[in-house]
Amino acid sequence: MQSFTPPHRVLMGPGPSDVSPRVLAALARPTIGHLDPAFQALMEDIKAALQRLFNAPDHACIPLPAPGTAGMEAAMMNLLEPGDRAVVAVNGAFGGRMADMAGRAGATVVTVDHAWGQPVDPAKVEAALAEAPTKVLAFVHAETSTGVRSDAATLCGLARKHGALSVVDCVTSLGGIAVDAAAWDADILYSGTQKCLSAPPGLAPIAIGKRAQAAIAGRKEKVRNWLLDFNLIMAYWGGPDGRGGGGRTYHHTAPINALYGLHESLVVLFEEGLQAATVRHARMHEALAAGLEAAGLELLVDPKWRLPQLNTVLIPDGVDEAAVRTHVLNTWDLEIGAGLGPLKGKVWRIGLMGASATPWHVRLCLTALCEALAAQGVTASASDALAAVDGALV
Amino acid sequence: MQSFTPPHRVLMGPGPSDVSPRVLAALARPTIGHLDPAFQALMEDIKAALQRLFNAPDHACIPLPAPGTAGMEAAMMNLLEPGDRAVVAVNGAFGGRMADMAGRAGATVVTVDHAWGQPVDPAKVEAALAEAPTKVLAFVHAETSTGVRSDAATLCGLARKHGALSVVDCVTSLGGIAVDAAAWDADILYSGTQKCLSAPPGLAPIAIGKRAQAAIAGRKEKVRNWLLDFNLIMAYWGGPDGRGGGGRTYHHTAPINALYGLHESLVVLFEEGLQAATVRHARMHEALAAGLEAAGLELLVDPKWRLPQLNTVLIPDGVDEAAVRTHVLNTWDLEIGAGLGPLKGKVWRIGLMGASATPWHVRLCLTALCEALAAQGVTASASDALAAVDGALV
Repeated sequence: MQSFTPPHRVLMGPGPSDVSPRVLAALARPTIGHLDPAFQALMEDIKAALQRLFNAPDHACIPLPAPGTAGMEAAMMNLLEPGDRAVVAVNGAFGGRMADMAGRAGATVVTVDHAWGQPVDPAKVEAALAEAPTKVLAFVHAETSTGVRSDAATLCGLARKHGALSVVDCVTSLGGIAVDAAAWDADILYSGTQKCLSAPPGLAPIAIGKRAQAAIAGRKEKVRNWLLDFNLIMAYWGGPDGRGGGGRTYHHTAPINALYGLHESLVVLFEEGLQAATVRHARMHEALAAGLEAAGLELLVDPKWRLPQLNTVLIPDGVDEAAVRTHVLNTWDLEIGAGLGPLKGKVWRIGLMGASATPWHVRLCLTALCEALAAQGVTASASDALAAVDGALV
Repeated sequence: MQSFTPPHRVLMGPGPSDVSPRVLAALARPTIGHLDPAFQALMEDIKAALQRLFNAPDHACIPLPAPGTAGMEAAMMNLLEPGDRAVVAVNGAFGGRMADMAGRAGATVVTVDHAWGQPVDPAKVEAALAEAPTKVLAFVHAETSTGVRSDAATLCGLARKHGALSVVDCVTSLGGIAVDAAAWDADILYSGTQKCLSAPPGLAPIAIGKRAQAAIAGRKEKVRNWLLDFNLIMAYWGGPDGRGGGGRTYHHTAPINALYGLHESLVVLFEEGLQAATVRHARMHEALAAGLEAAGLELLVDPKWRLPQLNTVLIPDGVDEAAVRTHVLNTWDLEIGAGLGPLKGKVWRIGLMGASATPWHVRLCLTALCEALAAQGVTASASDALAAVDGALV
C-alpha cells in the first residue's frame, strides 16, 4: 500500500468543483479537539456565515457532518413521521430521492411528476396541496441532474398558503444563484460544500427556521435518525436558537479539518462578495452558452430556467458521448459530467461552479470539447467558440 | 470574517488524537471527482486496507461518509426493523447510545446494564439472550467513556450460540488493541478515524459480514436511513461483496479529501505494522500508568480490563478538575478529557491513541499534570513520575 497522489484535474462536472489552494491549505491545518475553545469560536463563525449565505437571520444554520444528501435526509427525517402527508415535486434525480426519503421517514408521499428538463409547475403543486392537509412540500431549487431552476419564492408561498412546511434543496444553487430564505419565507434549506462553495465534498450546510423547529418539537415519535436529530445536533452547536450562549452538549465528534475547509471557502466567498459571485456565475454561463452555440451545440433547458452553474448540453446525433468525456479527461485532465436517468446518453453536464466559474475554465472546456468532437468527425470550431466567448465577456 | 488559524495542540483526550504532518498533507492534495478512475482506484485500496485492519477478509469494508457514530447508526438501522428484539450491553455512554438508536430503528430494546467502569458481563448478556429470540446483540469493545475493554470474542460467541447477529463498536479499539472480525466471527464492526488511526474525525470505517448482508437482504421494511442504506452505499463502493468488479452506482458524493487523509493514515499504520502499533500502545500505557502511580494518582479500571489507549485517572479529593484541564491547555497546549455521565468530576480521560502514543506524549502529559496539581497544593512529583516512565520503557 502506497501513498496516493491524485492527478491534477480541472473539475467542470456536476460537482465537486475546483477547490482553491487557499481552501486546500486550510484543510491541512493542525487538528484540534472539538471541545477546544478555539474550535467553538470557529463553530460560531461558521454559523453566522451560513446565516448570511442563506439570508436566514432567524434560522438555525449549521453544517451537518456528512455529504449534501444528509441535508435532505435531515429535513425529511426531522419533519416527517407516520401519519404525515408529504408532497414532493419531482423534475429530476434529486426530487425522486426526496420522495424516497420521505417514505423512509414514515410519511404518505405524493409526488408531482414533471418531465426532466422542466421546472416545477406551481399549478400542479398547488393542486396536490389542495387535495389534503400536508405537512411538507419539498422541491429542488436547482436540479443538478437537468440544469433547471425552479421558482422557489412561488413554491414556498404555496406551501405557506396551504399550511405546509417548505423544504428547499439548494445543493447546487447556494453561492451560484440567489438563495434567500427570508424573502422566500422558506422553512428548511440545505446545500453541499462541493458545488458553488468550492470546498471538498463532505458537509451539508442547513438552515432550519422557527416553524420547522416548532414542528420538530411537536413530534410524537423520535426522529428516525440519531446523527441528524435536529435537537441533539443543535445542542452540540450551541443551542436550538443556533446562536450559542447555552453551552454545548456532546453529540458526535465534528469533522474538524473539513470545517476548516468550509470556513475558508466562506471567507473566500465573502471577500469576493455574494452578489459579485452570483454575477460571475451568470456571466460565465453566458460566455459558455455563446461559445457552445458558436460551436454548433445546444443546451437542453429553456433560457428562462437555465442554471448558470450547471449546463446540460445536448449530444449531437451520432456522437459517442462517453468517448468525448474520456478524450477531454485524458487529453486535458478535464472532467465533465454524463447525463443521469432519462438524460443518460443525451446530455453532458458542464459545471461552472465556484472556483470553476472563470473565463479560463470556459475557454479550456470549449477547446477540449471541440477537439474531442473533431476527433469523431463532427465539425465544431474552437476558434469560433472562443471568439464568441470573448464577445460575450466584453 | 477572517481565515482561521488553529492553535497547535497536543491531543491526549478521548479523540481526536494528534494527526501526523503526512496525513495533514494528504488532506490538502487537489480534489478530484468521485467518478474519476483515479479515485475509484483509491476506493479499492481503502476497502482492501480496511479488510486487513479489521481482519475481515470476508466482510464488505468501507468508510462511511460521516463521523464514527454513523457506523453505529448504520449497523442498527440496517439490521433492525419493527418486530425485532435487540439486546444492548450498556457499560458506558456509547452502549446507551446504541440502545437509543436501536429504538429509533423500531426494535424492541433490552438493555443489560452495568456500572460504569466495569466490562460487559457475559453471564448477564447470556441471560438476556436466553429470554427470547433476538436479532442483534450489540456492545462496545472499548468504552471511550470509561476506558474499559470488554471480551469481544466471548460476546460474539454468545450471539452466535443464540442466533443473534453481533454488532461490535470498535471506535476506540481499532488500531490500538487487537480487533479480529474473523476470529470473533463478528457480524458488524465499525470505528472512527480520529482515535487510534490518527486521521481527522469525519469517517466511519465499517465491516459488514455475510450473515449481516443476508439479514439486510431479508428486511420487510426499507432501511430508515437513505445515506447509510447498506445496499445503496455498497453499490456506490463497487458491489455488495465489497470487492468491486460490479461497476458503481451513484449515491452520494464521497468526501474526497477526507478519504485522502484516511488512506494516508492507513499507509502510515501498515508501514509501522499493525502488531507493532498494538505493542506500542500497550507499552505507552504501561509507562503512563507507572508515571501516574509514582505521582500518586490512580486509574479507575481493573488492570485486566484497562484500555491502553484511554486511561481514566481518578481525580484526587479536593482537586478542581476543570482547573487542571484549563491549566494544561493554557500552559502546555495539552488537551486531556473530562469525565462523562456518572464519571463527570470523578476522572480525567487521557488518550494515548495513534500518533499520540509516544514516550514524548507520556512525559509531557505527566509533567503538565503534576504542575497543574502542584498549583492546587497537591503533592505530585514530576521527577518521580518521569523516572518511573523511564523505568517502564527500559
